[in-house]
Amino acid sequence: MSFTLYDASIPVMLRSLGQLASLLEKAAAHAEERKIDPSIFVNARLAPDMYPLARQVQSASDAAKACAARLAGLENPSFPDTETTFPELQERIAKTVTFLKSVDPALIAGQEGREIVMKRSSGDIHFTGASYVQGMALPNFFFHVVTAYDILRHNGLAIGKLDYLGRP
Amino acid sequence: MSFTLYDASIPVMLRSLGQLASLLEKAAAHAEERKIDPSIFVNARLAPDMYPLARQVQSASDAAKACAARLAGLENPSFPDTETTFPELQERIAKTVTFLKSVDPALIAGQEGREIVMKRSSGDIHFTGASYVQGMALPNFFFHVVTAYDILRHNGLAIGKLDYLGRP
Repeated sequence: MSFTLYDASIPVMLRSLGQLASLLEKAAAHAEERKIDPSIFVNARLAPDMYPLARQVQSASDAAKACAARLAGLENPSFPDTETTFPELQERIAKTVTFLKSVDPALIAGQEGREIVMKRSSGDIHFTGASYVQGMALPNFFFHVVTAYDILRHNGLAIGKLDYLGRP
Repeated sequence: MSFTLYDASIPVMLRSLGQLASLLEKAAAHAEERKIDPSIFVNARLAPDMYPLARQVQSASDAAKACAARLAGLENPSFPDTETTFPELQERIAKTVTFLKSVDPALIAGQEGREIVMKRSSGDIHFTGASYVQGMALPNFFFHVVTAYDILRHNGLAIGKLDYLGRP
């Protein structure tokens, strides 16, 4: 048995995207039950200059697909950020999951030492495959998933950490 | 070159604990500058039944040291949750970093298939070393670090995602 760069990234994100989908399902059901306009949740944010829930979900999707594409050397599929409803956000997660599942682990095998460059207007950022997963892909992905959870929790959704973690 | 279970866990957490320390430093400086009682930040929370900032930091520490101890088969050092100030929380992070750095990567090498059991009053949870890192240790650790960030951000601290991610 061994542990790989693939194991450290894609299955972690797939699992967490599944939990995110389930949190959004609970939020949609709660909104319906309490006759709350779902867009109030979709547009909720923790600070005026933080992204709202919809953009957190889109950013989690972006983080996951960019990681898979960069590590595997594939083109990163473009998903326009047009989602404004719970069903559309579920669809966005589902498309992301489909892409991640389509990535052959063999393409990521042995990529821990390969240079990965993130193009930024403020200057390129240079990683290896390993340092990219450790210091960018995972922390960035979880940032958006957890903030989505925190937005829902802050807005009164009855969820707990187990709804985020799921069962092994 | 290869990538290991150690690489996927301990350095990721060490890096993120460093960023958490730097976020708390910024919060302490902001409180001093604005003459805000620091305990208002330390006790701030996103929902009445969520943990406050101090407990999020303690929980991030707990998640990191439990992960290192479980994977390496070492005793998990007990850190009582007595911190109530920014300097005490910095000390807690520093103790956690010292413990994580003390763990010999060789102890974690090849542990991806070993059974790991988490004792819970609701029933034991069974993992392998790999599924524990993927589905528990990493998501749980990031949950508390990101929620700490979100609490500070929600309370008006001028930080952005780069303060959380850091530089490679």
